[in-house]
Amino acid sequence: MSSLKVGLLGLGVVGGGTWKVLTGNAQEISRRAGRGIEVVAAAVRDLEKACGLVGDTVRLTQDGMQVVRDPEIDVVVEVVGGDTVAREWIMEAIAQGKHVVTANKALLARHGNEIFAAARAQGVMVAFEAAVAGGIPVIKAIREGLAANRIQWLAGIINGTTNFILSEMRLRGLSFHEALAEAQLLGYAEADPTFDVEGVDAAHKLTLLASLAFGIPVQFNKTHAEGISTLAREDIAHAERLGYRIKLLAITRRSERGIELRVHPTLIPAERLLANVEGAMNAVLVSGDVVGPTLYYGQGAGELPTASAVVADLVDVARMQAAPADHQVPHLGFRADAIDDAPVMPMDDVVSSYYLRLRVEDRPGVLADLARILADASISIGSMFQEPHGDADADIIFLSHEAREGNVNDALRKIQGLPFVKSKVTRLRMENLL
Amino acid sequence: MSSLKVGLLGLGVVGGGTWKVLTGNAQEISRRAGRGIEVVAAAVRDLEKACGLVGDTVRLTQDGMQVVRDPEIDVVVEVVGGDTVAREWIMEAIAQGKHVVTANKALLARHGNEIFAAARAQGVMVAFEAAVAGGIPVIKAIREGLAANRIQWLAGIINGTTNFILSEMRLRGLSFHEALAEAQLLGYAEADPTFDVEGVDAAHKLTLLASLAFGIPVQFNKTHAEGISTLAREDIAHAERLGYRIKLLAITRRSERGIELRVHPTLIPAERLLANVEGAMNAVLVSGDVVGPTLYYGQGAGELPTASAVVADLVDVARMQAAPADHQVPHLGFRADAIDDAPVMPMDDVVSSYYLRLRVEDRPGVLADLARILADASISIGSMFQEPHGDADADIIFLSHEAREGNVNDALRKIQGLPFVKSKVTRLRMENLL
Repeated sequence: MSSLKVGLLGLGVVGGGTWKVLTGNAQEISRRAGRGIEVVAAAVRDLEKACGLVGDTVRLTQDGMQVVRDPEIDVVVEVVGGDTVAREWIMEAIAQGKHVVTANKALLARHGNEIFAAARAQGVMVAFEAAVAGGIPVIKAIREGLAANRIQWLAGIINGTTNFILSEMRLRGLSFHEALAEAQLLGYAEADPTFDVEGVDAAHKLTLLASLAFGIPVQFNKTHAEGISTLAREDIAHAERLGYRIKLLAITRRSERGIELRVHPTLIPAERLLANVEGAMNAVLVSGDVVGPTLYYGQGAGELPTASAVVADLVDVARMQAAPADHQVPHLGFRADAIDDAPVMPMDDVVSSYYLRLRVEDRPGVLADLARILADASISIGSMFQEPHGDADADIIFLSHEAREGNVNDALRKIQGLPFVKSKVTRLRMENLL
Repeated sequence: MSSLKVGLLGLGVVGGGTWKVLTGNAQEISRRAGRGIEVVAAAVRDLEKACGLVGDTVRLTQDGMQVVRDPEIDVVVEVVGGDTVAREWIMEAIAQGKHVVTANKALLARHGNEIFAAARAQGVMVAFEAAVAGGIPVIKAIREGLAANRIQWLAGIINGTTNFILSEMRLRGLSFHEALAEAQLLGYAEADPTFDVEGVDAAHKLTLLASLAFGIPVQFNKTHAEGISTLAREDIAHAERLGYRIKLLAITRRSERGIELRVHPTLIPAERLLANVEGAMNAVLVSGDVVGPTLYYGQGAGELPTASAVVADLVDVARMQAAPADHQVPHLGFRADAIDDAPVMPMDDVVSSYYLRLRVEDRPGVLADLARILADASISIGSMFQEPHGDADADIIFLSHEAREGNVNDALRKIQGLPFVKSKVTRLRMENLL
């Protein structure tokens, strides 16, 4: 069979990695795919630099439209990122009847519904294993491997930058800003780290995972994203002493009350597997009603791990390229006519346990007042720790049982207004998981 | 589209689970598969008992041949186990042009080459996700998700019975026989536990994983299987004190010298993820040259987790049933004409680190003699521990650096013959992994 002809949009880190893997492992890949997979054209910013990498084996252009309209090309690999030209090029590739492989979580999280609908109309695949958790085949696992299950929930560490920062804060006692500087030095964080540290990148990925797990539309605008930039090193240390670790978890859960979609720093018991995922590694815990909890772990980013996912998608495309479209796995794992518009729950309705920390004047009646406000809001306290701070103050930590977040917020507003409360109240969520 | 018609061979634990999942999750499954998946006939031993489970919705027979020759049936699910009737029925189903889903690792590990060849000739799928690690989609991960990689090695805990026994021995200080009795009481071990505790079941599964990882023929007869029945609780305790845990690992590795295929109790550093897989859980660590190490974790056995894998395979069949066979993923992930007959290494040529324990008379010159024999066999010692036993003896533990197993065996034969050696020398392998 003739080789699969690939057009690359972008030849940066992931694009370059894809080219390296396709050439370096060409033999092993064709042992699997039964045909070669060959990059024949690439749209790049810097022609000279690109030529230095790929030589004259690949037609180079600065115009992505030229690649997506190239009649020789069977499949377009989009690795430029962003949602401007990437979106136009992908939509045009689909219009041209070409399959698409992309690593672009931001684009799919915002415009996935439109892109998948267009692809369906044309009968082409849009594969995106590389968009979540790098080379870990977690999209394939959810989309196909767990197809027997009603997925109940999933929770993942799907941003390596923040996991690296949290590991450094815990293991070396660094502040957030010190650990961020370290991550930037090592290339784990970008110069403008906002997308990573504020949870936006994880929220993009969670949006996709939730659609794959439950068969719901992609809806990034309903995903709650909270980052780690305001985490204090004291809270990491307190958590550690209490037997917990703080991780930036992306959590989605389906219940009769709706779908939870939330990214936030979370205390989890230190003995859980997820708690022991350190550094820039990723892991996703997926629980199905039949299979129970399953975990997928590996490198979530980087040139070669991400290329591993891009090329696995290309092998799928190589096998299915000429098959009638009704044999393809649907883009989100569920048939388009079975996508379910279950409501996404507002954060106020989410039920979680909470870690609350505040500084108060150390005088009689303080605890009674706090306990009364919590009790009035139906918040039950599992444990409480108090230690003196200086001569006149005390630091208090409450670990609550499960409570409705709206009630917690109401109670915290009241507590924050009390005259003896001398700090902003820190509120972190806790999950027991597995 | 009309529903996929399934014939079940066996309605025991896994067969019953498959029926329950297909009926209980029928709606979610057809949201994914785009069509129903319906059990229309089943071959069972006990008609009355079967009727109690499935009522009159399924045609029941005691003759498997009747099911595999039933013209209404699209796909046969073989969950009777063993390699007598199961083999005949599967071969006849293939001859009849039916797709096959099976959980039968023993059969595939011994007769997989013949079965896959017959299936290829007929253009039918033989899917076996349920044969390894229950509901964890690790076969799909290796076969498709990591298709960009030259897999380098994998190491797995793929027998829940032995992992449960080892966990109990470590956590509760039980002997092997005490822990086995406990496992039998809880239903984790069978009345005749030989296949599990002697590593045969894990070797069956490893045989399949190695073929999927490297594209080599299935060759159970070359797989080294060593179980845990002779493991002493002292060794578990010593390992723990030295910072290791003992797990029954199934290991396969590809190097220029050939393929390693081995199942044996193994010391691994206690902080590794695999070391923290407790109870009856399974986990497989797969390392590819591009993706790096990845890990897959979950329940490796039981009615519903195993049925999760069977039904996921059925969803794949439902999508691909009518597609031309050249669009199917090859049975072992590699095209048949690209299967590579790399030699399997004899155990004597395997290189590993070793834990050696022996009791000796406590007198001058003993250590010198031992050290000389080890040095002469090119075995370098990383650390050594000695403690007195009674008045006149001492227990010695050596942890070696990497050495060739044949050299270790030669040295141990010499050591065993020394007049001051008062016990059988315990030899366990150590792997650093990740």
